[in-house]
Amino acid sequence: MLDSSVITKLGVKTVARFYKKRTETLRKHPGEMVYIGNNLKNESKIDKITYTPEKMTGRIHSLVDETTNFPETEEISWINIEGVSDVKSMKILKNRFNLNSLIIADIMNTGTRPKYQSLENNLFFSLKMLRYDQEKERILSEQLSIIVFKNTLVTFQEVPGDVFDPIRENLMMKDSKIRSEKIGYLIHSILDCLVDNYISILQLLAERIEDMEELLLDHPDETVMEKLISSKKDLLYLVKSIRPAREAFKQLINEKPTEIRNYMHYFNDLFSNITHVYETVELYKELTTEQMNTYNSYMNNRLNDIMRFLTVFSVIFLPLTLVAGIYGTNFEFIPELHLRFGYLYFWIIMLTLAGLMIYIFKKKKWM
Amino acid sequence: MLDSSVITKLGVKTVARFYKKRTETLRKHPGEMVYIGNNLKNESKIDKITYTPEKMTGRIHSLVDETTNFPETEEISWINIEGVSDVKSMKILKNRFNLNSLIIADIMNTGTRPKYQSLENNLFFSLKMLRYDQEKERILSEQLSIIVFKNTLVTFQEVPGDVFDPIRENLMMKDSKIRSEKIGYLIHSILDCLVDNYISILQLLAERIEDMEELLLDHPDETVMEKLISSKKDLLYLVKSIRPAREAFKQLINEKPTEIRNYMHYFNDLFSNITHVYETVELYKELTTEQMNTYNSYMNNRLNDIMRFLTVFSVIFLPLTLVAGIYGTNFEFIPELHLRFGYLYFWIIMLTLAGLMIYIFKKKKWM
Amino acid sequence: MLDSSVITKLGVKTVARFYKKRTETLRKHPGEMVYIGNNLKNESKIDKITYTPEKMTGRIHSLVDETTNFPETEEISWINIEGVSDVKSMKILKNRFNLNSLIIADIMNTGTRPKYQSLENNLFFSLKMLRYDQEKERILSEQLSIIVFKNTLVTFQEVPGDVFDPIRENLMMKDSKIRSEKIGYLIHSILDCLVDNYISILQLLAERIEDMEELLLDHPDETVMEKLISSKKDLLYLVKSIRPAREAFKQLINEKPTEIRNYMHYFNDLFSNITHVYETVELYKELTTEQMNTYNSYMNNRLNDIMRFLTVFSVIFLPLTLVAGIYGTNFEFIPELHLRFGYLYFWIIMLTLAGLMIYIFKKKKWM
Amino acid sequence: MLDSSVITKLGVKTVARFYKKRTETLRKHPGEMVYIGNNLKNESKIDKITYTPEKMTGRIHSLVDETTNFPETEEISWINIEGVSDVKSMKILKNRFNLNSLIIADIMNTGTRPKYQSLENNLFFSLKMLRYDQEKERILSEQLSIIVFKNTLVTFQEVPGDVFDPIRENLMMKDSKIRSEKIGYLIHSILDCLVDNYISILQLLAERIEDMEELLLDHPDETVMEKLISSKKDLLYLVKSIRPAREAFKQLINEKPTEIRNYMHYFNDLFSNITHVYETVELYKELTTEQMNTYNSYMNNRLNDIMRFLTVFSVIFLPLTLVAGIYGTNFEFIPELHLRFGYLYFWIIMLTLAGLMIYIFKKKKWM
Amino acid sequence: MLDSSVITKLGVKTVARFYKKRTETLRKHPGEMVYIGNNLKNESKIDKITYTPEKMTGRIHSLVDETTNFPETEEISWINIEGVSDVKSMKILKNRFNLNSLIIADIMNTGTRPKYQSLENNLFFSLKMLRYDQEKERILSEQLSIIVFKNTLVTFQEVPGDVFDPIRENLMMKDSKIRSEKIGYLIHSILDCLVDNYISILQLLAERIEDMEELLLDHPDETVMEKLISSKKDLLYLVKSIRPAREAFKQLINEKPTEIRNYMHYFNDLFSNITHVYETVELYKELTTEQMNTYNSYMNNRLNDIMRFLTVFSVIFLPLTLVAGIYGTNFEFIPELHLRFGYLYFWIIMLTLAGLMIYIFKKKKWM
Ligand SMILES: [Mg+2]
Ligand SMILES: [Mg+2]
Ligand SMILES: [Mg+2]
Ligand SMILES: [Mg+2]
Ligand SMILES: [Mg+2]
Ligand SMILES: [Mg+2]
Ligand SMILES: [Mg+2]
Ligand SMILES: [Mg+2]
Ligand SMILES: [Mg+2]
Ligand SMILES: [Mg+2]
Ligand SMILES: [Mg+2]
Ligand SMILES: [Mg+2]
Ligand SMILES: [Mg+2]
Ligand SMILES: [Mg+2]
Ligand SMILES: [Mg+2]
Ligand SMILES: [Mg+2]
Ligand SMILES: [Mg+2]
Ligand SMILES: [Mg+2]
Ligand SMILES: [Mg+2]
Ligand SMILES: [Mg+2]
Ligand SMILES: [Mg+2]
Ligand SMILES: [Mg+2]
Ligand SMILES: [Mg+2]
Ligand SMILES: [Mg+2]
Ligand SMILES: [Mg+2]
Ligand SMILES: [Mg+2]
Ligand SMILES: [Mg+2]
Ligand SMILES: [Mg+2]
Ligand SMILES: [Mg+2]
Ligand SMILES: [Mg+2]
Ligand SMILES: [Mg+2]
Repeated sequence: MLDSSVITKLGVKTVARFYKKRTETLRKHPGEMVYIGNNLKNESKIDKITYTPEKMTGRIHSLVDETTNFPETEEISWINIEGVSDVKSMKILKNRFNLNSLIIADIMNTGTRPKYQSLENNLFFSLKMLRYDQEKERILSEQLSIIVFKNTLVTFQEVPGDVFDPIRENLMMKDSKIRSEKIGYLIHSILDCLVDNYISILQLLAERIEDMEELLLDHPDETVMEKLISSKKDLLYLVKSIRPAREAFKQLINEKPTEIRNYMHYFNDLFSNITHVYETVELYKELTTEQMNTYNSYMNNRLNDIMRFLTVFSVIFLPLTLVAGIYGTNFEFIPELHLRFGYLYFWIIMLTLAGLMIYIFKKKKWM
Repeated sequence: MLDSSVITKLGVKTVARFYKKRTETLRKHPGEMVYIGNNLKNESKIDKITYTPEKMTGRIHSLVDETTNFPETEEISWINIEGVSDVKSMKILKNRFNLNSLIIADIMNTGTRPKYQSLENNLFFSLKMLRYDQEKERILSEQLSIIVFKNTLVTFQEVPGDVFDPIRENLMMKDSKIRSEKIGYLIHSILDCLVDNYISILQLLAERIEDMEELLLDHPDETVMEKLISSKKDLLYLVKSIRPAREAFKQLINEKPTEIRNYMHYFNDLFSNITHVYETVELYKELTTEQMNTYNSYMNNRLNDIMRFLTVFSVIFLPLTLVAGIYGTNFEFIPELHLRFGYLYFWIIMLTLAGLMIYIFKKKKWM
Repeated sequence: MLDSSVITKLGVKTVARFYKKRTETLRKHPGEMVYIGNNLKNESKIDKITYTPEKMTGRIHSLVDETTNFPETEEISWINIEGVSDVKSMKILKNRFNLNSLIIADIMNTGTRPKYQSLENNLFFSLKMLRYDQEKERILSEQLSIIVFKNTLVTFQEVPGDVFDPIRENLMMKDSKIRSEKIGYLIHSILDCLVDNYISILQLLAERIEDMEELLLDHPDETVMEKLISSKKDLLYLVKSIRPAREAFKQLINEKPTEIRNYMHYFNDLFSNITHVYETVELYKELTTEQMNTYNSYMNNRLNDIMRFLTVFSVIFLPLTLVAGIYGTNFEFIPELHLRFGYLYFWIIMLTLAGLMIYIFKKKKWM
Repeated sequence: MLDSSVITKLGVKTVARFYKKRTETLRKHPGEMVYIGNNLKNESKIDKITYTPEKMTGRIHSLVDETTNFPETEEISWINIEGVSDVKSMKILKNRFNLNSLIIADIMNTGTRPKYQSLENNLFFSLKMLRYDQEKERILSEQLSIIVFKNTLVTFQEVPGDVFDPIRENLMMKDSKIRSEKIGYLIHSILDCLVDNYISILQLLAERIEDMEELLLDHPDETVMEKLISSKKDLLYLVKSIRPAREAFKQLINEKPTEIRNYMHYFNDLFSNITHVYETVELYKELTTEQMNTYNSYMNNRLNDIMRFLTVFSVIFLPLTLVAGIYGTNFEFIPELHLRFGYLYFWIIMLTLAGLMIYIFKKKKWM
Repeated sequence: MLDSSVITKLGVKTVARFYKKRTETLRKHPGEMVYIGNNLKNESKIDKITYTPEKMTGRIHSLVDETTNFPETEEISWINIEGVSDVKSMKILKNRFNLNSLIIADIMNTGTRPKYQSLENNLFFSLKMLRYDQEKERILSEQLSIIVFKNTLVTFQEVPGDVFDPIRENLMMKDSKIRSEKIGYLIHSILDCLVDNYISILQLLAERIEDMEELLLDHPDETVMEKLISSKKDLLYLVKSIRPAREAFKQLINEKPTEIRNYMHYFNDLFSNITHVYETVELYKELTTEQMNTYNSYMNNRLNDIMRFLTVFSVIFLPLTLVAGIYGTNFEFIPELHLRFGYLYFWIIMLTLAGLMIYIFKKKKWM
């Protein structure tokens, strides 16, 4: 999974979030090997885990080069590739695993829409792993491609780091269920970790949105709208990964390839989970809209209260100012001016007038 | 069903309402037994009702422990479990009822999406019981899982208290229909009680919304919007339980498992009822939106009326103040000041001007 | 159909319009006979029309009691029941017509969702008859349940009065088509009258909405918004009856029960009609929304015009007042005050200033 | 097609546009012959065109009366009826063409929803011809019913005038494709002319909407909103005719009746065209909404600019007026008043204050 | 593809963007050859590329005239026509390629809805090539029609210039995949270039929209709304080309014509790509709406802040002006005026009052 330092290197900040740039690299023929993503030119690294109920072997990280070769065995193997940008490495892997050129193009184009495809003798998944960058408060995504043929499962990631450590731990335990099951169970485990990953991202967003709730009832300020819109965009972004993934799982369940046929309960459960996530994201979208309405309503009310108060306040002074103005005129004969208690009467009139207006406005609940 | 005191203990207040937290408990392998919910560590309690047309036996509450065992009989049994958070108890139940590990995971994860699944030799339902907390004016939900195998139906609840007392009463009456029917009728009775539960929750919400109606026409204040938004959120929350439950019932009816085949009219009726509830919730959502529009329109009109009145009021004083100001100037020769009835004429002009403006503004309906 | 006096008796005013109350009567087992509606405890009344092409007999109103019994004949019978609230009467009818307990429950619950169900040997419809209460300007609804078995059609209404008089008139005419047709034609006639009933209700609403149109262009006031929202709610209420009825007709046409198989053209026409009604209601909903926008736009423009005018008016007086204020200062030496035509010049300046401002504001179209 | 003078006679102005009135004519039995529309009591007129590749005969207009009769021939005939309001004439036509009573009812009810129905031995279409009344800027619609049996096609129109002159011209040309084709081609020609009619109406609306675009960018005034809403309503009205017509064509293509089986490419093309029209109407609806937003945004900005300017203008005068007021007080000892250049200093202070405020407000971009 | 100079000639500016005008050319019979588009009367030009794995021949541009004829060969041919407005040229091509008259009509009507049709012995596509005119900031579209029969693929374009140069380059390379594949691969290559064309257009729009994002956070002005609305319209326009194209591809994949049966993976990939584009356009539409909301919210807040500040500012001067007015009155006996430090006290009162008000308003956060 992308960590913060890597992201800075990749210059994610300046890259359009919702669509991978490739203006300069419009491919000349379909299936051509062109990396589309954040221009990282690292060679690919590879590691491999092989297991039977009895034993489990892990070959550690090495660069992909001409010597990369794994003898085929009856055991279940999980080969993990990190880095899909280096054309040379990818060509070696293409030949090693005998990959269709369209598949390799989908792997190298990190903006591929999540999908599932069953080919002649293998299964292909293109999915997204997500990561919430606390600092920048945005969701980052890394493409995960999965290919299954016979007893071998290969995962392709963009950069090191993933969400599969629980699986690795289980694989190391001798009595774990995964060691005694077929490759379908490994497929399920990987997809299940991904969905758990979506759930944990959604929970982070959910907390942010529900914190906002309290803020809204308490003392909302101008920054709230910005945060609400940013949450909405994150939800839109989440949907962009989850909806096609859900479609892909649906298609997988309908096709029931032999690899997964003994694990249909697991995959149905998976589909139910991703549906739940998808529906909850949609619900949060509606909630965010409601929050925006609340905020707008609150801000309007607040402004209206202020403006109404101020206007009422102004209005009280207008008649008083007029009265003062009248007695400031220079007419030769203004009888009130010469009354003995004229100035006193003036003040009484002024205060009465003010009091009356305040009384009326208070009664009308305008103040 | 959750009662108020329990809720406080559970700390529901600080928990995200729309999604169960489980950041720390991302499960390591699918089907692992991890309780996801409000951290209650009580052991599970169990009770059992067995009946034939002739007799009915009820075994009272006891803790689930190693000795928990029920001989299988030809009679119909309804076993009810309260508490799904204690791993040890759940492991005993899992073995006793020979449950699939995915099923037990769904039972223990109280945030499972409502669903129906038919397994090799049993039926599984995950649904929600709802409860309206009058005090806090919010809907609370408790997960209800149902498993049916042969003549046994098992219900799993989170905490004591449920909506099934009418069924228990019927079971105690010797001549009741339920005593003479097969297990399909018991399944229907339980689902029917749940739907009645949704209807009664909806009625509470409906009354609150329709009370709002009168308030809106009468003397709405700032708190109305808050109440409207809170109603809308409750409706969204209701939909979250009802829509997938409706889908589950649809699937049940399409699959027609043998247990229910003789009771299709009952299940069709049930489906029609939950559809009605679902449509009515959607209708109330639309109504609430209309109410929000009404409220906004009312508040705008009210503010506009006030502001217009105040502005017109101000405008009337401006020319008068000017006139007073003019006769307050110190020009050496201002003929009007020295007229015999100058001050009188001044007042006549002032009042005429004021009267004229009031007349015009009244005629234009600005006042 | 409900007439106004009855409604008052029923206390419709205090009853939630969109959902029938039944908090206190959550039924204890499905199919229990509990009346849900406006608490009218009248015994049911019954009448019966029997006809062949040659003759037609009508048995007049009588109370439903133990003696209620009709010999089955080869002739077509239409039995009409008025009042479904009295449990004793309904029990008699249930036995007489051998009704399923779920059906009788649906008949007595006057909040049943419109539906069609084909049972072993009969057809069941639950529908709504509507009535527009001119005085209170709201739509009232009465539930109509229809059961067909062999040559007998039974209708259940809540209170006396319905929309079927044209059918009764046709039945009395010896040469009318209905007398020479089978029961399918009678079913069609009744459903057709109901759809005509929806059309006439929609026409009343349509006229109200289109009258509003003219009002909107002419001299809208504050009451318009209220009326618009009330129309919208009536349309929502209409949809609630029409949409499920349309679904029911669709299902009837797809199932093609033997009773109607010779009249498919009639039922297709019926479906086309109710679809037209449904689409027109949806269209009017959109129109009402447009009207709300028009109204808001109009009110805003009107207020804006007033406020702009008033503000411009104020602004004209401000510089004049300042000038007057300046010449009201008591500086020892203000040369202008001692000019021969000082006061005249002062007026010339004042009027020029005012004229200039009015000219500019008029040119800018601010006045 | 309706021409303007006729419309005035029909009193279209006072008739609800979206729903035909028939309060007084609720039909007593389905299929009864009652004219529903604008009460025109003209007798129907009839004309007939018969053609083979070799020759073409046209019988001119005559009233429909007892003598109306056409011998059936092997040639293709197109019979056109103008006027569907006269019950007597329609009865004659009903008998002559042996029409189902439901069909004749649909023909006479000019508010029938567009539809396609295949009957025992004929095809029936109910569609709308549209006409844009330039003067009143609204769309008028006339119902067109089409019946096809064997080699005869009958069209029923409300009033004289239609969009089929191009077909008549083609029929008169000896070598035209239509003369050498079967009746399916004639059906297609008529439907194709109707869709072209929709396209030309849409183009008129489209131009009006796109003219509005320029107006919006240029100098929008209060009438724009009215025009926008009127366009939106016309689009809603258009959809009301086009959407069900599209459904009807879809159904025709799915049923593939023998008459059209050799012309499927033509009918598929027709369906593609009407789909395009439908989608374009929907697009224009969205565009109109955007235009409304633009207009509202523009008007708001304009008003805001004015109000802000005026407020800033007022604010500048307030401190100046206060200063003048202060030196207008009558305190015994105000040293400034007796300074040698007191009045000059006063003016310097006033102008500095004004200049400063203008500078600040300009810098803040408030002016 | 249209270049800028051509567009000016075509007078694109005055043509409705969303619908091609054809008021004057309502076709007289379906399939008549009438050019509908921007009235360009150039003769059509033609060129042809023929290839086998071994050799590749390109015949250069020539006018379409009577001598236009290509012997049929076993090799794969790609014939490209530029210009579809000249009836004479099109008639020659119609005869040469034996085209259905409906197809030729669709080719010449440049407003045809994107579609796929399989005819007796050929495949037909009508699609759009897009081009973003940087200067006018709008999307321009050119119609591309494709016909495939046996080993020949014919493309029809409106004007010279297209997006297929990468294909031409590949065709010239001896070892390229395309040279060794069948015609299905050529079809795919052309459609793939079109989808890449959509992607690059979308990227331009995406960048414009995301640039707007920064502008919105920074210093939005009145032009932003205009730009947002213009982006929204471009997105609507894009959807108009992409959605039906996606439907066409779906239909192609479902029909699986023999020409493409060996390349299903390629066409599935193509469909996945266009689906991604379509979903991303929809996402950007939602984003643009969010941006509009942000902008409106920002502008409102900004105006509100200004107005509130100004109002508060005014309110501070009102009491001060009143006080000054009071001491400007001419009452005979006003004791304050004759106090020794009266004028000083006056200033103290004024400043205290002002300070107090500022303090209060600051504390209330109104300033
Ligand atoms: Mg792809
Ligand atoms: Mg996508
Ligand atoms: Mg990605
Ligand atoms: Mg997407
Ligand atoms: Mg998506
Ligand atoms: Mg859910
Ligand atoms: Mg809204
Ligand atoms: Mg689950
Ligand atoms: Mg829940
Ligand atoms: Mg849900
Ligand atoms: Mg939901
Ligand atoms: Mg609805
Ligand atoms: Mg019911
Ligand atoms: Mg309903
Ligand atoms: Mg009802
Ligand atoms: Mg409904
Ligand atoms: Mg409803
Ligand atoms: Mg619509
Ligand atoms: Mg709105
Ligand atoms: Mg009809
Ligand atoms: Mg319609
Ligand atoms: Mg019409
Ligand atoms: Mg319609
Ligand atoms: Mg409609
Ligand atoms: Mg076309
Ligand atoms: Mg289109
Ligand atoms: Mg084009
Ligand atoms: Mg489209
Ligand atoms: Mg479109
Ligand atoms: Mg979406
Ligand atoms: Mg909007």
